[in-house]
Amino acid sequence: MITVALPKGGLLKDSIQLLQSVGLDFSAFLDPANRQLEIWDASRTAKGLLVRNYDVPVYVEYGQAQLGVVGYDILREKQPQVAHLADLQFGHCRMSVAVRASSPYRSALELPPHCRVASKFVNCASEFFNHLDLPVDIVPLYGSVELGPITGMSEAIVDLVATGRTLKDNHLIELDQLFESTARLIAHPLSYRLNSDGLRDRIEQIRAVQ
Amino acid sequence: MITVALPKGGLLKDSIQLLQSVGLDFSAFLDPANRQLEIWDASRTAKGLLVRNYDVPVYVEYGQAQLGVVGYDILREKQPQVAHLADLQFGHCRMSVAVRASSPYRSALELPPHCRVASKFVNCASEFFNHLDLPVDIVPLYGSVELGPITGMSEAIVDLVATGRTLKDNHLIELDQLFESTARLIAHPLSYRLNSDGLRDRIEQIRAVQ
Repeated sequence: MITVALPKGGLLKDSIQLLQSVGLDFSAFLDPANRQLEIWDASRTAKGLLVRNYDVPVYVEYGQAQLGVVGYDILREKQPQVAHLADLQFGHCRMSVAVRASSPYRSALELPPHCRVASKFVNCASEFFNHLDLPVDIVPLYGSVELGPITGMSEAIVDLVATGRTLKDNHLIELDQLFESTARLIAHPLSYRLNSDGLRDRIEQIRAVQ
Repeated sequence: MITVALPKGGLLKDSIQLLQSVGLDFSAFLDPANRQLEIWDASRTAKGLLVRNYDVPVYVEYGQAQLGVVGYDILREKQPQVAHLADLQFGHCRMSVAVRASSPYRSALELPPHCRVASKFVNCASEFFNHLDLPVDIVPLYGSVELGPITGMSEAIVDLVATGRTLKDNHLIELDQLFESTARLIAHPLSYRLNSDGLRDRIEQIRAVQ
């Protein structure tokens, strides 16, 4: 029996479609009335776990799920001990530095040393500014990061940008891009090495339908 | 001008009622159609910021908001550098250790050493088990912590319990309580000491109406 950790939110629909194309049906998770967090596939050879996108690597790292689908942004931020198996080519977005459009800065290197940068991705932001050799004060936030520059708490933000709509609505512009992100297929390293429950065949099937 | 950071979610309605009773009206935040995260009171002497409950202490710590309303659970977990001013007596809940009802454990001390404990409140959980002198492996999760024991990933959880409904629905029982939590009024320490913009009068008004 294989357990697959699936992320709530924007990546769920595509993740479920992908698994359907290899014969695993977890579409019940898409029913708005569904309250179950754990469901079996009709074949009863696989189980789906519906968890927060941030928690997918945790379930896979601890071996509670052998497979998982998660954004590359989260893998970069948390650096979990999981096997990276495939770029699933959906959930395209980018991690960017943004500032108020009215600010004088047009590249991250122009930001003043020791300025504040608000982010949910504090490790990605630190790593980026360390590489630039620009010391900044990272302000960790959990939501609505765009409020940082709006309220004047921070000069800049580091955040995920998909369509750019949120930035535009808040009169923010992108300065630099840290990296691009897509959904990734990950596995529990030991289960992958031991090929538990025919895990590798499933992975090859997924790779083949991409 | 005073800025008040208000928490999205369960504490919002009571927080807004409290501020209304001292003449500050931020009830527009309760309108489901509202998309603004920053609104002025009609008197234009105060501004409200609508932020994630976890972010309230950040805005207050950095002085972007002089006042804030936040759960004691978050103050315990994050230990921010803010002034604790009043227990607002709403948002009652408790931080508890829970396990599967079918497990043999009936107190936290009976948990096996080096067992796994899933929690969103990793600092509170670590502190509690350190005081018990019981070494455990804290598994940090962002949501649906009850899945820890259900999937077998963790023996126990440390989580906030209000009505107990989520525990019951997932066949979990409380073993021990870490602390009780209610909404608290917090302030930026320097603004409080300097009594910027008549901050202390506002605080006395809030204390008086409680």
